[in-house]
Amino acid sequence: MKCSIPKGTRDFLPAEMARRNYIFDTIRQVFRSFAFEPIETPSLENLSTLMGKYGEEGDKLLFKVLNSGDFMEGVDFGQDYRKVAAQICERGLRYDLTVPFARFVVQHRDQITFPFRRYQLQPVWRADRPQKGRYREFYQCDADMIGSTSLLNELELVQMIDAVFDKLGISVTLKINNRKVLAGIAELIGAPDKLTDITTAIDKLDKISLDDVRAELRDRGLSETQITALDPVFALSGPAEEKLAQLAQLFANNAVGTRGVEELKELFGYIALVQPRCTVELDLTLARGLNYYTGAIFEVKAQGVSIGSICGGGRYDNLTGIFGMPDVSGVGISFGADRIYDVLTELDKFPPDLGQPAQVLFINFGAESMPYCIRCAAQLRSAGVSALIYPEAAKMKKQMEYANRCHVPYVVFVGENEIASQTLTVKDMATGTQTTVTPDQLLQEILHA
Amino acid sequence: MKCSIPKGTRDFLPAEMARRNYIFDTIRQVFRSFAFEPIETPSLENLSTLMGKYGEEGDKLLFKVLNSGDFMEGVDFGQDYRKVAAQICERGLRYDLTVPFARFVVQHRDQITFPFRRYQLQPVWRADRPQKGRYREFYQCDADMIGSTSLLNELELVQMIDAVFDKLGISVTLKINNRKVLAGIAELIGAPDKLTDITTAIDKLDKISLDDVRAELRDRGLSETQITALDPVFALSGPAEEKLAQLAQLFANNAVGTRGVEELKELFGYIALVQPRCTVELDLTLARGLNYYTGAIFEVKAQGVSIGSICGGGRYDNLTGIFGMPDVSGVGISFGADRIYDVLTELDKFPPDLGQPAQVLFINFGAESMPYCIRCAAQLRSAGVSALIYPEAAKMKKQMEYANRCHVPYVVFVGENEIASQTLTVKDMATGTQTTVTPDQLLQEILHA
Repeated sequence: MKCSIPKGTRDFLPAEMARRNYIFDTIRQVFRSFAFEPIETPSLENLSTLMGKYGEEGDKLLFKVLNSGDFMEGVDFGQDYRKVAAQICERGLRYDLTVPFARFVVQHRDQITFPFRRYQLQPVWRADRPQKGRYREFYQCDADMIGSTSLLNELELVQMIDAVFDKLGISVTLKINNRKVLAGIAELIGAPDKLTDITTAIDKLDKISLDDVRAELRDRGLSETQITALDPVFALSGPAEEKLAQLAQLFANNAVGTRGVEELKELFGYIALVQPRCTVELDLTLARGLNYYTGAIFEVKAQGVSIGSICGGGRYDNLTGIFGMPDVSGVGISFGADRIYDVLTELDKFPPDLGQPAQVLFINFGAESMPYCIRCAAQLRSAGVSALIYPEAAKMKKQMEYANRCHVPYVVFVGENEIASQTLTVKDMATGTQTTVTPDQLLQEILHA
Repeated sequence: MKCSIPKGTRDFLPAEMARRNYIFDTIRQVFRSFAFEPIETPSLENLSTLMGKYGEEGDKLLFKVLNSGDFMEGVDFGQDYRKVAAQICERGLRYDLTVPFARFVVQHRDQITFPFRRYQLQPVWRADRPQKGRYREFYQCDADMIGSTSLLNELELVQMIDAVFDKLGISVTLKINNRKVLAGIAELIGAPDKLTDITTAIDKLDKISLDDVRAELRDRGLSETQITALDPVFALSGPAEEKLAQLAQLFANNAVGTRGVEELKELFGYIALVQPRCTVELDLTLARGLNYYTGAIFEVKAQGVSIGSICGGGRYDNLTGIFGMPDVSGVGISFGADRIYDVLTELDKFPPDLGQPAQVLFINFGAESMPYCIRCAAQLRSAGVSALIYPEAAKMKKQMEYANRCHVPYVVFVGENEIASQTLTVKDMATGTQTTVTPDQLLQEILHA
C-alpha cells in the first residue's frame, strides 16, 4: 500500500514545525501585548453560513462534507451536480476566518464585551488548484477589533504589523490606502458606478505600465474624458502629507473623498508619533481584491524578495450585516504564515537554534546505571530542561550518531565512578570539552547558557 | 438569517480558550521536557488511508469530503450509498492521530531519526451522535515513541502522565496492565481464540458484578470449565508486586504470560525508582477497546469525580505494518483535553487569573492626551505587557465598566498634570488605591507583581 496525502496538503516534520511555531508564537505574542483575546470556531460550518459569501468562485472552492448515513434518500440525481451537492452536503470546511468571525459575533453578541478585540490562528481550506506557495489547507492568523470606529484601532494594527516584522527581522513596506479616497476618485471623474473597474485596473499599476492600465480602463468601459480625468491622481507625488494635501484640493467639492483624506491624515499623524521601524507609504493604487473594505486598506510586502503580500487588512463597516446585525464597524489584519515562512527561508532569517528536541542526552550503558540516570533526568526535566535517556544500551557509535543528528548540545556519560561520586561526565558537543560536574551544576550551566 | 453551527461542534469564547490553552500548554511543556518533537499532519487524508482502520463502526463515523467539480460524472447512482460515497469522495477528515502518524512514519522514514519521539496536538472529527462530553470535532494530544522496545519508554510515559496531572493539580489513578498477561490467561484456560471475548467481558468488572461478567463469558461461548479456570485470576490480591508473584506461578508453563509478567515487573521496578505522585495500580481487568495493543496498557482516571478515562495508551508492535513497514514497535499515550477540562471545572481547579486580555487600560479623555498615551502604551507593550487604550472618548462610566468586565488589573488616567510631569495616575482595581507613578515605575510594578 502506497502512502500519500491529498494534493495541496502537507505533513510538517519537527524542523518545519519549529520554524512555523516560531512565526505563530511571534504573531500571538504581539496580538496578546495589544490585548487581543483568542477565540476558535469549528472547522465545519453549515454551508448556509458559507455559501454566497466569497463570490461565485469562492462557492466553487468550498470543500463540502457528505451528510452521514444514507445521504441519497429522497435526492434527485438527475439534477445539475451543484444542486445535488447542496442536497447531499449540509456542512463545509471553513474557507477563511472572517465570515465565521462575523457569524460568531452575531451568535454570541450577548456574551461579548464591545469593543471586542479577537485573534484567531486556525487552518482554512480551499479546493484551489495547488501550486508553489498555494495550498489547499493553510493557516490564517487574524486580528480584528469590532464595535469601534476610532482610527486609534487602525494605528494599533500598524503598530502590530511593525512589531511582528521587527521581531521576525524582516524589513517590510506597509502600504496604506482608503476606500473612501478611491470612491471619491470614481465620483470625481463621473464614474461612481465604475468603482470596482477603476480599482481593479489601477491595483495593477505595480505590475503593468500606466498605458496598459489606461487600456484596461478603456476595455472596462470608461470614456477617454474619464480616463484623462484620472491624470491628476496618477501625477500625485511626494511624501504622504504632500499627496494628501494635493488630494484635499482635488476633493474640494467631494464629500466622500474629503472624508477619506481626513481619515488618512489622522492616521498618518498618529503613525508619525510612534515612529515605526517599517517603511510606511500612502499608495493610492492599493485596492486589494476584497470588496468589503470601506475605510483603511493595508498591505505589507517584504523588501528584497519577490514574494507577494505577506499581510493585509482593512476596515469593513458592515461585516455582520449579512447575519442580521447591522451597523457594526470593524477593522482587522491577517498575516500569511506560509508566505512569511518563505520570506524567512529566502532571507535566511530563522534563528539557528530552533527545533532542538533534547538539551541533554544520557548515554545508555545498560541496566546498572539506569536508576541513577532516571533520577538525574527527572531532576533536569522538573526544572524545565528537556532530557532524554537513550532507550537501548546500543553501541556507543550509534548513540553518539543519534546525538549528532538531533543536535543535542550536552551528552552525559554515567559509569561506576559517576554513580559513586554522584556526578555526571558531560560532553559539550559544541566545543568537544568534557567535564565532570554534579547534576545541579549541569542544570545551572544549561539554565544560564 | 439565523446563526448556528453544526451539531456536535463548538465555538470557543476567550474565557474558554484561556482554560483550554492552559491544559494544552501544560501537556505540551511536559512533552517537550521529555524531548518529544512536534509534527502535524493534514486534516484531510485520502480515504484509502483511513478506511478499514477503525473497524466497521469507524468507517461509518468518518467524515467524507465531496470531490471538487462535477463529482457525478461516470458514477452509477443506482448502487448502495456506501459504494456511491466511495466514488464521489476521495478524501476524509482525520479520525484520530494514530493512523495518520503511522502513515507519516512510513512516508517519511528516510527523514526521521529513530527512535523517534513525536507529539501531536490536533483536532479530529467523528460523525458520532453528539451527547454530553462527546463532540464531532475535538482535540487529541498524543505522544508516541517509535522504533524502540525498551521499557524505559513505558516508564517515561508514566512519568509524563504523573507530571501533567501534578501540574494541573488533579489527583489521578493510573492503571497499568499488559496485553501479554491477558493473552497468557486466555491460553491458560484453553481459550486462546477467545482473547477478545475474555478481555471485553472482564474490562467491565468496574461497572458490573463478577457474576454478571461470568454470565457474559458464558454468552460469549466459554465453557463452565474455562470460566472456573479464571477464578485464580479474579482471586489475585495485594500490591502489584504480590499479584505479579502469584501470576508468575500461574504462568509457570506459559511463555507469553510469563513474558507479560516480566515486563510488568521491570516497569513497576522502574516506577518505584521515580516515586510518582499519582496512584499507580496493576489492574488485570484493564483491556481497553483497542485491539492493537500488544504490551503495556495504560488508563488514567481522576479521583473524586465520575468522569471516565482522561488519558490512555499502550504499546503496539505493528502499527506501521498496514502501510508496508513491518517490525516497528511503538508505545504512546493520548490525553483527552475535553474530559480534563470537565474534571478541572468540576473540581474548580483552574487557576483564577487565566484569560485576562489586558493588564493595563488607558482611559480615553480625548485627542489631546492621545499622543502621550500612545507612547506610554507602546513602551509597556514592547516590554511584553498587554496594554489597551480605550478607542473612543466615551463616558467615564462606560470605560470603567469595560475595565471591570474585562478584569483589567490596572486602569490609567492621563490628564494635563500627568503629561506635564510625564507620569501616570494608576488605579489598582483589586485594592482600589490610586497612585501617581512614572511609566517605568508602572512597568516595574507589573513585571514584579
